[in-house]
Amino acid sequence: MRIALDAMGGDHAPYSTVNGAIEFIQDNSLDSPYVDLYGNQDEIEKIIDKSGFSSDKITINHCTEMIDMDERSVKAFRDKPDSSLVRAVSSVKEGKSHAIVSAGNTGALLTSSLFILGKIKGINRPALAPFIPTQNGGFILCDAGANSDVKPKHLVHFGIMATAYMEHLVDIKNPRVALLNIGTEATKGNELTRQAYPLMEEHVSNFIGNIESRYIMEGKADIIVCDGFVGNSVLKLIEGLIKHLFSWLGDSINSKTTSKLASPLLKPAFQDVKNVLDYEEHGSTPFLGVNGIVMKCHGSSSVKSIKNALKSAAKACNENLINDIANRISKHLIINSELENV
Amino acid sequence: MRIALDAMGGDHAPYSTVNGAIEFIQDNSLDSPYVDLYGNQDEIEKIIDKSGFSSDKITINHCTEMIDMDERSVKAFRDKPDSSLVRAVSSVKEGKSHAIVSAGNTGALLTSSLFILGKIKGINRPALAPFIPTQNGGFILCDAGANSDVKPKHLVHFGIMATAYMEHLVDIKNPRVALLNIGTEATKGNELTRQAYPLMEEHVSNFIGNIESRYIMEGKADIIVCDGFVGNSVLKLIEGLIKHLFSWLGDSINSKTTSKLASPLLKPAFQDVKNVLDYEEHGSTPFLGVNGIVMKCHGSSSVKSIKNALKSAAKACNENLINDIANRISKHLIINSELENV
Repeated sequence: MRIALDAMGGDHAPYSTVNGAIEFIQDNSLDSPYVDLYGNQDEIEKIIDKSGFSSDKITINHCTEMIDMDERSVKAFRDKPDSSLVRAVSSVKEGKSHAIVSAGNTGALLTSSLFILGKIKGINRPALAPFIPTQNGGFILCDAGANSDVKPKHLVHFGIMATAYMEHLVDIKNPRVALLNIGTEATKGNELTRQAYPLMEEHVSNFIGNIESRYIMEGKADIIVCDGFVGNSVLKLIEGLIKHLFSWLGDSINSKTTSKLASPLLKPAFQDVKNVLDYEEHGSTPFLGVNGIVMKCHGSSSVKSIKNALKSAAKACNENLINDIANRISKHLIINSELENV
Repeated sequence: MRIALDAMGGDHAPYSTVNGAIEFIQDNSLDSPYVDLYGNQDEIEKIIDKSGFSSDKITINHCTEMIDMDERSVKAFRDKPDSSLVRAVSSVKEGKSHAIVSAGNTGALLTSSLFILGKIKGINRPALAPFIPTQNGGFILCDAGANSDVKPKHLVHFGIMATAYMEHLVDIKNPRVALLNIGTEATKGNELTRQAYPLMEEHVSNFIGNIESRYIMEGKADIIVCDGFVGNSVLKLIEGLIKHLFSWLGDSINSKTTSKLASPLLKPAFQDVKNVLDYEEHGSTPFLGVNGIVMKCHGSSSVKSIKNALKSAAKACNENLINDIANRISKHLIINSELENV
């Protein structure tokens, strides 16, 4: 197996990407998949040399361009065919590698994946499905931002795809799928969720009904389905609110003499919670519905995060995630023909 | 001035409502507005007797019915004309009182307000506008759940109404209004936010652009405008996530011997943050756009929360909030005629 890695993507690239690849290969020793690095050969070689690592499991594919984090996605894809990101995606299309990992520009990665690899048959809208850790484990949020305006049938696809992904990658069988809504009854919500509810009931194997955002952290559902506008708002609010509360509690503790004294004793307890919340452990998000394994890492991914993303990509390849999604969707193609306008 | 109070609305009513009214009157002594209690006379009298309070500033208006928290709003409004909630709202229409405070069924209160009092001229969709406290002060979220599907012009109305409300009730002049979105550029977002952006720029006096949910707690905007589906999801996620994190940190602290020892020293620091987050301080939410002052309290409101809601209602009357909103909207009526279909 060969995994293509966009070595120039991410705030700490290529240091984080190259060392992530090295650690991944070291962890897997002889059984390791190959990692094909795409990026600036000189820069990559310097980092490899410095690490003292040497293995035929790693290859360097020189690229003359790179896509910045804030470039417009379609323009970047069109204007930079020799960028590390586009070349890594193309390598899967050309049969040279089996999966892509990138911490680069999300929009450019999604656009390139769609243009180059296309979609799984029956899927109209690929979706982002990050894992959100909580005290009780966590859940997958789908879609977390790939599609701002969707139709009810797309929410059904998100539920089916995320179910397959969760069964393979997190080893939870028949995960509980809930529809994010502003009330629990089937008749609550906006036009989108009201129309999606009966479709979810019919087509998603373990659909448990609506869930209000108040309860998503409580472990009541394994997969939370919503449109990408709401999902992106939820995802970013969780990140922002956690940061805000930790900083606020820290300031409050330090503003009081007695609690300030106790603060060193607390660090391990705070750190335990922070460790679970750490996106680096669960840092990669698949583009579900793309006809190929594409794992997107957080822009600020570290070495550990890249290593874990490579692991997830290898697992998805081994377990044939794309075929499994295609098979599941093929059993529900009726919603595409029945619901042309829904 | 007379304020109508739905004495039977809320989880702790009539205890919380009657005592909230008593404390409100005591705080204002001779200058206090009158509080007209609507509800079961026997129950209310028992609570007043027990308190030893006596004043002509409080009146009891016996009602034979009450609306439960989970009753369907339109049905409750139609079937229970002698309920404390409907009678309190009607008292404003009849000119007997100048504002309503209720901690009862939100849907029934909104329905009754709309049917009985109607809307301010030029407003199509009244909105909920709760104050969300943060470390740096807080912000108003509008709409937080009254309208699940809206048009771009409604978001403009939300911005104008919330500006008036904030200037009067929180004494912030020319508050900064932001549009909740999944990117900062004007072209980002879904169809609704993309179309709303230029309208907000044209019609909302201090529109500062888009804001991502990640930054709403950071004090960058005083008013965050969004549709009621997204707003309700944001509101409930904030509540749920704060509860989840506090409980998680508590469990983590108690699971470690050293941090457990320090835990009593910490309580004041945690309590400080909890106090600011306390909805009872900011517990009432206006129904902006209704042609009358309607303050909705949280279902689990305490005595303190009811007292503060009565204060807000009195301030809104004194400052003529309804007229001010009507005046502001009258200067932007063009968006209703220009944008019939937007």
